[in-house]
Amino acid sequence: MSTQVSPLALPLPEMPSIAGAECASVAAGIRYKKREDMTVFRFAAGTTVAGVFTLNKCPGAPVDWCRAALKGGKARALVVNAGNSNVFTGRAGRETCERTAAETAQLLGCKPKEVFIASTGVIGERLPTDVLLAALPGAVGKLEADSWQSAAKAIMTTDTFPKGATRTAKIGETVVTICGIAKGSGMVAPDMATMLSFIATDAKIPAPVLQKLLSKGSAKTFNCITVDSDTSTSDTVLLFATGQVKHPRVPAEGGAILKDFARALDEVLHELALMVARDGEGAQKLITIDVTGAVSAKSAHRIAMAIANSPLVKTAIAGEDANWGRIVMAVGKAGEPADRDKLSVAVGGTWMARDGGVIPDYDEAPVVAHMKGREVEITVDIGLGRGKARVWTCDLTHGYIDINGSYRS
Amino acid sequence: MSTQVSPLALPLPEMPSIAGAECASVAAGIRYKKREDMTVFRFAAGTTVAGVFTLNKCPGAPVDWCRAALKGGKARALVVNAGNSNVFTGRAGRETCERTAAETAQLLGCKPKEVFIASTGVIGERLPTDVLLAALPGAVGKLEADSWQSAAKAIMTTDTFPKGATRTAKIGETVVTICGIAKGSGMVAPDMATMLSFIATDAKIPAPVLQKLLSKGSAKTFNCITVDSDTSTSDTVLLFATGQVKHPRVPAEGGAILKDFARALDEVLHELALMVARDGEGAQKLITIDVTGAVSAKSAHRIAMAIANSPLVKTAIAGEDANWGRIVMAVGKAGEPADRDKLSVAVGGTWMARDGGVIPDYDEAPVVAHMKGREVEITVDIGLGRGKARVWTCDLTHGYIDINGSYRS
Repeated sequence: MSTQVSPLALPLPEMPSIAGAECASVAAGIRYKKREDMTVFRFAAGTTVAGVFTLNKCPGAPVDWCRAALKGGKARALVVNAGNSNVFTGRAGRETCERTAAETAQLLGCKPKEVFIASTGVIGERLPTDVLLAALPGAVGKLEADSWQSAAKAIMTTDTFPKGATRTAKIGETVVTICGIAKGSGMVAPDMATMLSFIATDAKIPAPVLQKLLSKGSAKTFNCITVDSDTSTSDTVLLFATGQVKHPRVPAEGGAILKDFARALDEVLHELALMVARDGEGAQKLITIDVTGAVSAKSAHRIAMAIANSPLVKTAIAGEDANWGRIVMAVGKAGEPADRDKLSVAVGGTWMARDGGVIPDYDEAPVVAHMKGREVEITVDIGLGRGKARVWTCDLTHGYIDINGSYRS
Repeated sequence: MSTQVSPLALPLPEMPSIAGAECASVAAGIRYKKREDMTVFRFAAGTTVAGVFTLNKCPGAPVDWCRAALKGGKARALVVNAGNSNVFTGRAGRETCERTAAETAQLLGCKPKEVFIASTGVIGERLPTDVLLAALPGAVGKLEADSWQSAAKAIMTTDTFPKGATRTAKIGETVVTICGIAKGSGMVAPDMATMLSFIATDAKIPAPVLQKLLSKGSAKTFNCITVDSDTSTSDTVLLFATGQVKHPRVPAEGGAILKDFARALDEVLHELALMVARDGEGAQKLITIDVTGAVSAKSAHRIAMAIANSPLVKTAIAGEDANWGRIVMAVGKAGEPADRDKLSVAVGGTWMARDGGVIPDYDEAPVVAHMKGREVEITVDIGLGRGKARVWTCDLTHGYIDINGSYRS
């Protein structure tokens, strides 16, 4: 397996502390040796929580656990481990979650249903619960507010770089802070990529409002990235609001007072999501796909995802070939309303085809130069309506096969 | 581009002549040099025809042409060229079809709407119509009944082996013959794979009955294979019945008299479809996926296709890794009803996981041995109902990236 850092990597930013959120990472030894692989967060009393999860119909036990816990809207802890996803582990998997929550609740003095759990790694192997539980007290003993950076590293599986983002926002005249970390689509052979992201803010926001903000923000960020069309059984995004900063009260229905907060949250989600795409297995190029002129935004999104998931489009881009024929194929494959003779395609801002045919004398030079870069932009106008969407993906390279076709000796 | 023959290749069988169907292949020089790249078929008066086509919403001009021509139910000719797909070529593309049909009709003394057309190759480049038309008289001049084998070769693009199949069947006590050829998923840089197949029989079958047989047969053969989930703009299967053999009359509604014919046709379609999967770009292994216990046959088919199209499943198989965790992920990704705790997974007939958990002491030795072979069998039982489906695909290897990521100098 390659240990080379993605050429699209971004540096981990300085991450300020969030009042009411402490964390600690330890080497529990669940699967990895000689590295931190378990992270515990403790949140102040009164912390509210929101979550979005994989749409996979066979989710892992931790996803089931979090979905149920989320109904209470309150969080006091989060336990994350890397190396074993606790997926497809039957009754044992549920017991692992129950015991982890019970033990953490006892250590921190809260209810089990206020403990959130996320696991990533091998599927179908029992998570060694005793090993995880044995490491809990050590983690709790070193909790501190200023350890986001080590958490960003401890949750990695075969991500090639740690991912973090931070913003401040105003609620009324009061400044609040948002910090988030994510892990993405590095692979732990023999398993699938999983996207996990954990975000905390010191703002005080009712859980239903927080959920609305996270759902809306994720829809245009995390749900607009794809690496290979495969959907992990463990994808989880959790947003915690500790309420430790005094600011004008946020009403139960949210509203205009959160406008700047929503902007800042969306930026954090956007930055983290793109970092995940930048660390797709074997990625050499980040691809932005804009679809305009579809019959609806939903239709535009489906067309954009069909392009982003097309192996033929992705291999063409890996080969630095501005192959608009394959893009047209992918549009048609989406099954959404499209008229071949109204399609237009641009690469890097240069229109190559318009109204169903190649533009005879389009200038190829800027297209060729654009394709050699690390970031490739594709725009498709469907020519039927006003629906638009933007998604991100990476190219499909030999690196993907190397990482995922783990040749066993 | 690799010129190595797929390790999954099968030999081209002896192909008997079909009374009332003659063909000839010539080197028209549309794109390829020094090889036959155009094939013309002439069918006897009274020949009926059926067709199935790509579901891609942006099909090529020849697909539009055939769909319209099919309404007449009669065929006298078929013109196929390799190297240019005449897709996304706007008005020029339509004119190419019109001129090809008109010219062929004149040469053969039939109506333009009795001429069928199929093109495969580059997308978005105008097909040099004059070059194609100039080659037509030469092809017509050498038409003969016994040239299926050369046609199987002339329609290839970067297929690594020619594909043909033949069967006989009884209608009443009379023996009739079916011959078919196909081309598959070799790539013509910079374009997508296209599946074309042409089948002829000397039986006399009304067009609506023929269409029903072809639609039903294709649904369980050609529509059950996938290489990379991408859908060509040109996929076309045409079935011609020349009616040159005297057999008991087939009634307008078809019925029991065609039972043996349907069996033989299905076998031809099955054999051709599997040859296409065996020649998937970079394929090293043929994968058969059986899904049982789904809530319906349709649901089973969708789940099977989700597994077959999963890059993570396909790379695992390339790596000879019986990674049932990825199979479970793909089941969940399909979006169809599934219950993680009722799933069972077998590889090569050995059950590895049952009722949502790994079988602790399953015998790994036969699984490991099975994975090293050229043909891999995966069975998933959903445990919910009685719906079942079978599909075929190939693994995802470095060869796929080599072929499709055509690095331009």
